[in-house]
Amino acid sequence: MKRVMLTVAYDGTNYSGWQLQPKGETIEGVLNRCLGELTGEEIAVIGASRTDAGVHAMGNIAVFDTASRIPGDKFSYALNQRLPEDIRICGSKEVSLDFHPRHCKSCKTYEYRIYCAPFPMPVKRLYAHYTYVPLNIDLMSQASACLVGEHDFKSFCSVQTQALTTVRRVDSVEVFQEGNEIVIRVAGRGFLYNMVRIMAGTLMEVGRGHMAPGKVAEILAAKDRQAAGPTAPACGLTLVGYEFMTEESDDENSR
Amino acid sequence: MKRVMLTVAYDGTNYSGWQLQPKGETIEGVLNRCLGELTGEEIAVIGASRTDAGVHAMGNIAVFDTASRIPGDKFSYALNQRLPEDIRICGSKEVSLDFHPRHCKSCKTYEYRIYCAPFPMPVKRLYAHYTYVPLNIDLMSQASACLVGEHDFKSFCSVQTQALTTVRRVDSVEVFQEGNEIVIRVAGRGFLYNMVRIMAGTLMEVGRGHMAPGKVAEILAAKDRQAAGPTAPACGLTLVGYEFMTEESDDENSR
Repeated sequence: MKRVMLTVAYDGTNYSGWQLQPKGETIEGVLNRCLGELTGEEIAVIGASRTDAGVHAMGNIAVFDTASRIPGDKFSYALNQRLPEDIRICGSKEVSLDFHPRHCKSCKTYEYRIYCAPFPMPVKRLYAHYTYVPLNIDLMSQASACLVGEHDFKSFCSVQTQALTTVRRVDSVEVFQEGNEIVIRVAGRGFLYNMVRIMAGTLMEVGRGHMAPGKVAEILAAKDRQAAGPTAPACGLTLVGYEFMTEESDDENSR
Repeated sequence: MKRVMLTVAYDGTNYSGWQLQPKGETIEGVLNRCLGELTGEEIAVIGASRTDAGVHAMGNIAVFDTASRIPGDKFSYALNQRLPEDIRICGSKEVSLDFHPRHCKSCKTYEYRIYCAPFPMPVKRLYAHYTYVPLNIDLMSQASACLVGEHDFKSFCSVQTQALTTVRRVDSVEVFQEGNEIVIRVAGRGFLYNMVRIMAGTLMEVGRGHMAPGKVAEILAAKDRQAAGPTAPACGLTLVGYEFMTEESDDENSR
């Protein structure tokens, strides 16, 4: 028996998110099915980030156990033969049997993209949220500064969360322009349910002048989802990458 | 009667190109149908660039004549209500009745994108050609230099062309990296059938080391399609923009 780690990239447009659902195709479901066909075993992958419906990834992580004789680093090639074009394995390797992608120290980076122009751009529509409202990046950047650090992000968490604690540490938030796109890049150890999308929705309120940058500190302090801005649409969000630290984590609440 | 110019952006993935075809949905067909519904007239747009199946545009140009009382600058809003999400009008205005988008001096810019990495990236697959073969940008850039200027581009033209002359002037070719993407940006007054895609296919041969950069001058001199590299796939090509010069052109062969 060995444990294999996959780096998984996907276009989330046509999926009901990562996690198995009673209805609708999911990334987890497709991976389990293709791995089952490949190994002849019943495989259940464990995902590092259980991204929402419509959210994309350039490097999510999945691990699974197998008795297959396929070497760990060959799974990427074998799986890509079977996967649909909108899911690709960008790397695979054997890891230790006690490696769990949600119970070890990691830093993940998300990007939220906003295409901001008088008219929408068809080639951007699947991977960026569109708005015709001009956004002030300087104000958004100012507002984002107070999100960095360890805070109780209860105001930035869906009320549907099952997390034991809503305290998380955000390592950095950058807001920058790329052509007509505004990118909000957030890095941190763990994120709550909808956290980045609520941060994006709130920073957009600041950018359009509906909310003062200083208000974001008050929102954090309120610990109330109602205080923050709306949850920005899923299509703008991409999990861009994962970095695992060497030491095991003792924090059961990272997700 | 007035003539209206539209700036048209589209995701070409699901279309059989710009031009009306016996089978398959085209950009021209969708525009004619939506304009017909909007005005109650039979409308036939004239496109500036008749892009191939699968090619994208951020700013193609179409003109049409109408007796409608809708002001020229309002057509963008009215049409976007009716068009599918993968076609958007980014601007509209009234132009003089003798304005013809293929018979006036213009400069158009195309970008050919190549996603170059050990594994394909799902969120890039629709708008960039994928290759796992490493490409040397410096060699591609060297090779591209001799394409700039007025030349007989017969070697870089599909044999299916109906052009009267294969002489064209290319104003610039830039080859640069954007993350894992290599972008070939070509600007010029007019392009032959498949010209940018054959240029891209040839520069990729240089980039992978199968062809010396100096070979491109020989290919031009050969005036033979067989001498050049393959036609690169359509999905990597995007017409990014158009610029019209003020004076009317006397050149009947621009397309």
